[in-house]
Amino acid sequence: MSRPIFVILAEDKLGLETSKTAASTIRYLPERVCAVIDSEHAGLTSQDVLGVGGDIPVVASLAEALAVTRATPQALLVGVANRGGTIPPEHRPVLFEAVEAGLDVWSGLHERLADDPELVALARQRGVRLVDLRDPPADLPVGTGLALGTDAFRVLTVGTDCNVGKMTASLEIRLALRERDVDARFAATGQSGIVIDGAGIPVDAVVSDFVSGATERITLEAAEGADVVLVEGQGSLFHPGYSAVTLGLLHGSMPHAMILCWMPGRKHVYAGGYDWVEIPTPAEAIAAYEEAMRWAAPQLNSRVVGLSANTYDLAEDEARRVVEEAGVATGLPSTDPVRFGAEALAEAVEAAWKTSARG
Amino acid sequence: MSRPIFVILAEDKLGLETSKTAASTIRYLPERVCAVIDSEHAGLTSQDVLGVGGDIPVVASLAEALAVTRATPQALLVGVANRGGTIPPEHRPVLFEAVEAGLDVWSGLHERLADDPELVALARQRGVRLVDLRDPPADLPVGTGLALGTDAFRVLTVGTDCNVGKMTASLEIRLALRERDVDARFAATGQSGIVIDGAGIPVDAVVSDFVSGATERITLEAAEGADVVLVEGQGSLFHPGYSAVTLGLLHGSMPHAMILCWMPGRKHVYAGGYDWVEIPTPAEAIAAYEEAMRWAAPQLNSRVVGLSANTYDLAEDEARRVVEEAGVATGLPSTDPVRFGAEALAEAVEAAWKTSARG
Repeated sequence: MSRPIFVILAEDKLGLETSKTAASTIRYLPERVCAVIDSEHAGLTSQDVLGVGGDIPVVASLAEALAVTRATPQALLVGVANRGGTIPPEHRPVLFEAVEAGLDVWSGLHERLADDPELVALARQRGVRLVDLRDPPADLPVGTGLALGTDAFRVLTVGTDCNVGKMTASLEIRLALRERDVDARFAATGQSGIVIDGAGIPVDAVVSDFVSGATERITLEAAEGADVVLVEGQGSLFHPGYSAVTLGLLHGSMPHAMILCWMPGRKHVYAGGYDWVEIPTPAEAIAAYEEAMRWAAPQLNSRVVGLSANTYDLAEDEARRVVEEAGVATGLPSTDPVRFGAEALAEAVEAAWKTSARG
Repeated sequence: MSRPIFVILAEDKLGLETSKTAASTIRYLPERVCAVIDSEHAGLTSQDVLGVGGDIPVVASLAEALAVTRATPQALLVGVANRGGTIPPEHRPVLFEAVEAGLDVWSGLHERLADDPELVALARQRGVRLVDLRDPPADLPVGTGLALGTDAFRVLTVGTDCNVGKMTASLEIRLALRERDVDARFAATGQSGIVIDGAGIPVDAVVSDFVSGATERITLEAAEGADVVLVEGQGSLFHPGYSAVTLGLLHGSMPHAMILCWMPGRKHVYAGGYDWVEIPTPAEAIAAYEEAMRWAAPQLNSRVVGLSANTYDLAEDEARRVVEEAGVATGLPSTDPVRFGAEALAEAVEAAWKTSARG
C-alpha cells in the first residue's frame, strides 16, 4: 500500500499519550506528513510539541493546512478517536471539508468511513478514496499454528499494559537489527503500524474466532525471506478489555522470543475504569507470557529475552535507574529504546536467533 | 426470541461429535424439533442415533420432513458447518428449497445468510425470515469489568479443549440448581445455546476488541434478579485457534467460580492440525484458568470448584473410573453430568455461592 502525503487531524489531542496514530506517524514517517491540525498548539512545530518530526507545522484548521507550501497534501489522516473507536462528532465536519478539498481520508477507527452514506456519496462525487485501516480482509482462517513453520526467527512484543510502546519497540529493534546486518521485518497488527509500514492487518478489528488466524497470516507474509520477523503486539494479558486480542496474537504469531514492554511510571491498567488491576512487575509479566505460550506451544520454550521501557514521563536519571533495576531484577537486557537506544535488545534478539538456528 | 418448530439439517453429520447444534437442540429443545434430515440414518429416530430426543424422525430429504405429521415445521435450522463456519456448498440448495416451502432459515454459521443476495431475494418474495444466529449486536462496548458488580454468583464453564461439553455442563447444572431451589440462569455465548435459550450473544463472532464487553453484557442481562448465573464457556486456553475467545470470556464474565469441562478420552487438541498440543491434565488446566483470572481480577480469588467430564466415548466402568480418579487427583467433585448426573456440581456451586455471600 503506497502512502500519500498526509495532513494529520489531531485536534485537542496532539500528545504522545493521547494520539498514538498521530505521534507515531510523525515519528516514523515524517517525510509524508505536511501538517498537523491541533488548534491548541497552532504556530508550533511537531518537534516543539512531541520532540520528533522536525519542522512539521502545527496549524489550527484544515484551511491552514492546505495553505502550507512544504508539500501538497493528498490525504487527511484521522488521528483522534473515542474509546471504542468512534469518530468524535465534533470532528465529522473536518472529514467533509477534506473530501470537498479533494483529499482522500484515512481512518483507523472501528467506526468505518464507508458506513457513512453522506461521506461516501461526497467522496464518490469528488473522486477521492475513503481508506478504513481497520477493515480486515474477509477471508481470514481459524489459526492452526502455521506460523510455526517460518524459517525466520519470530519475535513478538508483549506488554504489562496497552499503550506502553510495543509498536515503537518493534520498529526500533528492526532498525537496530538492520544496522547489525540482520534482515529484520515488521509485521503490523494495528492501524498506526499499518500506516507506517504500508501493510498489515488490524487484528483488534478481526472477528475473535479469526484473531490467531489473522496474526498467522501477517506473520507468514512478513517472515518470507527474512532472518527475523518482529510482530507488533497488542493489548496485555492483564487488561480486562483487550486480553483476548493479546492471547490471539501470542498463539497466532507463535514467537520464539518475546520483548516485554512496560511503563515504569504507570500503576494501574490504562484508561479509566480499571483501577482494581495493578500493573504487574516485569518479572510477574514475564512469567505470565511464558506460561501462556506453554499452553499452546510447549515445544517452543518461548522466552522473554529483553525489557523495553517507555519512560517519557520520568526525569532522565530516574528513568535510567528504573531501567537498570528492572534489568538486574530479571537478568535481562533492559532499555528505553527511544531514550537510550535499542542496541541491547537487538543484540539479545540476534543472540537468541543464532542459538535457535544452531539448535 | 421465540423459537419456531424446526426441521434440522444435519445431512451426513448427525452425531454428537460432528453436529453440536443438531445434537444439543434435540437434547434440550426436543418439543420444538419435528424432524432431522440425515439420509444416512433415514428411517431411524433421534433416540436411535443420539440416545436423546425420543421419537423425532430422521428423514432423507426436506420433502420427507415436510410430510411428517407430528408437527408443522416453521423453520429450517442449519446444523452443519465447515470449519471456519461456511455453508457447505452441497447443502445450499436445501436452503432454497426450505425458503420456497415457506420456512424461515436459522443458521449459526459465520457465513451469513443475509450476505447471499439470491437467498435474500427469494426470502423476501416468499415472506420468510433468514435468522443469522452469529450476527452480534452492532453497539458492543470494550469490556470494563462491569460484570464484577452483579448480585448473582457468577460461574463460567471452562475447558481443556473446545467441544468437550461446556454448554451441556452449564445447562445440566442449571437444572440441578433449580431442583435445589436456587434461581439459576444461563447466559448463552454460542449459536447452539442461543437456539436453546432464546437469548445470548455469539461471542466468537464478535470483533475481538469487544469480546469481553459482549460477555459482560450477556452476563449482566442473565444475572438480573438471579441467585447464580451460569455463563457458557467457549474454546480453551490451550487451543491455538480459539484461545482468544476463551480469555475474553474469562475477563468479561469475571467468574467467582469455574467448572472445568474435559474429555478423558481425548489426547490432542480438537479437530485436525493441532497434534503438537497435548490436552493438559485437569490439574494443569485448573492452574492455567485460575492464573488467567488472577491477571485481570486477583481480588476475586476465582477457583475451579468442580470437574465435568464428557465420557460418551468410554465404556461405563471405564468412565466411572476416570471420573473418580480425576476427583481424587484434584480434590474436587467430579462427574459426567449427562451420564452420572450434575448434582455434585450443583452442590459445589451452591456451597461456593453461600460461602461467597457470607464473605
